[in-house]
Order: sequence, then C-alpha cells, then structure tokens
Amino acid sequence: VAGLAARSLAGLPEVHAGDDLAAMIASRSGAGGEPLRSGEIVAIAHKVVSKAEGAVVDLTAVEPTERAYELAAQIGGGAGATGATGPAGAASPKDPRAVQVVLDQAAEIVRAERGVIVCRTHHGFVCANAGVDASNVEDPDTVVVLPLDPDRSARRIRARLRELTGESVGVLIGDSFGRAWRHGQCDVAIGCAGIAPLDDWRGRVDGHERVLRATWLALADAVAATAELARAKDSGEPVVVFGGLERFVTEQDGPGAAALVRPRDEDLFL
Amino acid sequence: VAGLAARSLAGLPEVHAGDDLAAMIASRSGAGGEPLRSGEIVAIAHKVVSKAEGAVVDLTAVEPTERAYELAAQIGGGAGATGATGPAGAASPKDPRAVQVVLDQAAEIVRAERGVIVCRTHHGFVCANAGVDASNVEDPDTVVVLPLDPDRSARRIRARLRELTGESVGVLIGDSFGRAWRHGQCDVAIGCAGIAPLDDWRGRVDGHERVLRATWLALADAVAATAELARAKDSGEPVVVFGGLERFVTEQDGPGAAALVRPRDEDLFL
Repeated sequence: VAGLAARSLAGLPEVHAGDDLAAMIASRSGAGGEPLRSGEIVAIAHKVVSKAEGAVVDLTAVEPTERAYELAAQIGGGAGATGATGPAGAASPKDPRAVQVVLDQAAEIVRAERGVIVCRTHHGFVCANAGVDASNVEDPDTVVVLPLDPDRSARRIRARLRELTGESVGVLIGDSFGRAWRHGQCDVAIGCAGIAPLDDWRGRVDGHERVLRATWLALADAVAATAELARAKDSGEPVVVFGGLERFVTEQDGPGAAALVRPRDEDLFL
Repeated sequence: VAGLAARSLAGLPEVHAGDDLAAMIASRSGAGGEPLRSGEIVAIAHKVVSKAEGAVVDLTAVEPTERAYELAAQIGGGAGATGATGPAGAASPKDPRAVQVVLDQAAEIVRAERGVIVCRTHHGFVCANAGVDASNVEDPDTVVVLPLDPDRSARRIRARLRELTGESVGVLIGDSFGRAWRHGQCDVAIGCAGIAPLDDWRGRVDGHERVLRATWLALADAVAATAELARAKDSGEPVVVFGGLERFVTEQDGPGAAALVRPRDEDLFL
C-alpha cells in the first residue's frame, strides 16, 4: 500500500553560526521522537541551514551603492507587505541596505516593482528578493541569505547524519518561492542529496500500455511542498522527517536541486 | 505534534461517464481501508473526475480547422515526448484533431513550439496543451479534457460524500502542471471545496514578534503536490486521503482553486 507519513521535529533550539545542525537534528530525532531510519527523508527549512553556515548579513555594515538607492526608490515600499502579488518574505524594500544585499545575491533582475525585486540568484533560482529574508531572525538589523551552495550543504548534512546515526537518509533544503501564473507561494527544493530531484516517466507506459508522453515529476519540489504542510510556519520547527518515500531515496547523493533549474531558453512557461 | 499522513485508495475501478465517483470513493474507503472521517482531505486526480463527467472527446468526431492544421505543423512533433521542457502529457501534437481540442479549451495561447502548446485555459489556468491529456485513457482515439468547472465538481463530490458517509471532508482535484523557471511538473489544485486554497500569514508576527511580511502559502497546491507522492503514477490509484490537515478544512466550501489564478497584470514572475 502506497502512503506517506511526515512528522515535524519538535524542540530544535535556535540555530547560530557554527552550530552542528546535523547533530542537533540527530539528537532531537532521538529525544522522545522516533530516531532517524535509513530511507527516510529529512526536509530542512533553508533558514536554519543559512544560520548554521553564517549566511547572515549585518545590515549596519552594508554600504548601499547608488544602484541600491535607485532601486529602493523605484520599487516603492509597502506593496510587498500587503502584497497583491504575495512574494516571499524579505527585508523592508524601503531599506537601501537590504536592497544592496539582494543585489549582491542576484545574477539577474527579472522584475523590480511593487516593493519586490524578483531575481535570478547566483544559483539560478528565480525568486523574490533573491531569497533574502528578514522573518524569523533574532536581530532586526540582520537578514538571512540563501546558503552559498545548498546542494553541498545537503550533502554535508547527509554525510554527518550518517556518521552520527549510521542511517542513510535523504536530505532536502527548502524555501518558499512565489510562482508565475498562480497566487501564493509553495516550498521548493533549493538543495538536496540522496533524493532523485526529478522522476522521469517520459517514455514509460501507463496502465493501458500507452506511452506516458511527457510525465516528468519534480519530486524534490513535491517533498518540499509537503514539508510545509507538516508544520506551522511560526512553530519554530524547521525540520520535517518523511517515511514512505524510500523509493525516491538514492544511495548516491545525485545531481541535487541544481537539476531543477530550467534555463531561460528552454522555458515555454514564460 | 504537527504531522500528516496520506494513504492512497486502492481498488478504484475504471471510471466511465455517468459514474457516481463519490460513491466509488466512499465504498473503497470503507472496504478494507479506514473509512473517511470529518476533517480529512480527499485529493482526486482530475482525470477520473473528467471521465465521470464525460469530459472526454472522441477524436474521430473532431473536424480540425485551418488554424489547427497550421499549429500542428508549426509546433512539430516529438519534442514534447522526449521533452527538454517536460510539460504535462497530452495527445500527440502531430495530430491536428488533438490540436483542435486544445484550441477549443484555450482562452489564450502563451507559447506554441517544440511539440507543446502552452495555453491559458478558459478557467484561467496556464498549462501545457490546455490540460488535454491522452495518457491513462482506454480508447486511443479519445482525449480527456479538464472538468468544465473543477471547483463545482469538488463541491458536488464533497456534498455527495457527506450525504453518503455523514462525514465532512475537504475535496481537492489536482493536475500535473509544468512551471516557469523550473524543470519538471508538480501537481496543483485545479478545484477544491472545504479547503482554504491560500493560507495568508501576511501581517501576522513570527516567533520573534516580527511581522511576516509577505508569507502567503498556496495550501491547496501543496496538498495537491503531496498527493502525487502518496501514489505511483501508474498504479491506477487516483485518490489519496489525508489526515493531519484538519486545521485547513473549512465548514464552508470557500472560494475554490479559482482563487489561485493570478491575473497577468499582477504577475511579477514572468
């Protein structure tokens, strides 16, 4: 019988730069809850990964460039907050220092208006404000940026969890992204290890022996979206553990979430 | 403790026009499995809803227009199948009759190339081939189209499930859509009843008493994406039942998945 179960990991303490996040996860998953088992998937909100890696910027040390002042003035304030468009949370768009951090994270600006800068990040992800985020941060003068290489972060956490627990789990790092064409955000995978990011059914036959012509599931994104349902956003529970997805967990670390990035010239949905 | 569980409903027979789909679901959920309980969410792959509603087109009765012949020639064949872009399954793009069905379902053509016609449907959804689908269909000369009004379909199924079981569940109808910027498809909600389609955290405070500026979760889409993980695509199990999401199930039917459609002039992700 197919089926899946997800449990949110309670009691993870506040994460700081240099913390051994995998050890915190291994310890919490053993404490009172069920220990991790091989074949499970551990989905982690990117913010705690970023914090552990010190991917946090002190705004008081940021010198905005002329371009940041211009953009801050151009996009205006407020609309991002009340949000007809509802992009992901970010530092106040009025603050040229926060805009400078966004510019530093961006490889390309897609749109900049209504309080939001939609960017392609240096990783290739297209999201609001290049993933720069001020929510759930202790110090209001700091913002959290995306991990430098989230696939590498996932691989490291996976290896460390194996070292600590002896179990081989899949690891996924998620963030909430706005989408084209549809309101609201869904969590997507920005990093993963030991999970097939895409499940390719193209060319396989369906239940009626007909070829499934173009079924190509973004598995890692589906897992990320599911993690969002297993916790409340304000619960301080950034880690969700999945059972029932063993068939998608791989021995090798695999290509990571980088495989989910679609080059612009292949994109028919724009 | 937060958490969720999803089980795929085994043994649903092949669905035909006029079938009472809700009765089939209620009967299968009682047979051997756990019966439905109030507060659960029943996620249904659109194809069985379409089939029950007779939203199936006989290609032998379709007279392609000049425009259909032109488009069929213009987009070429094959690429959609091997798919660098990987849009959702659809009838052969070489077949002008299938192209005619796509045109009949489309309010607007977004892109037409590489074997795929990305459309905005008359519902407002942007997807490959207007959701016209030839996979998992018994007769190779037929294609399945999206339900005429999937939110109404969801409301009807919900009401009928309540009538049959006495339980008040949420009902969601999903389909696999390709996305801008990212490879692969994720299931999204094309219809729902008794589920808040969007969970609006904008203006609420986070764990550190800071305002979550623009967090606006596409809940119904996350549930749809999760359903995809709880079954194998070829298993003939189009129905997934969720527990643990009671907080998102509403007494009223609510605005439905229509609330997820983003008007083009509000879209910053294009």
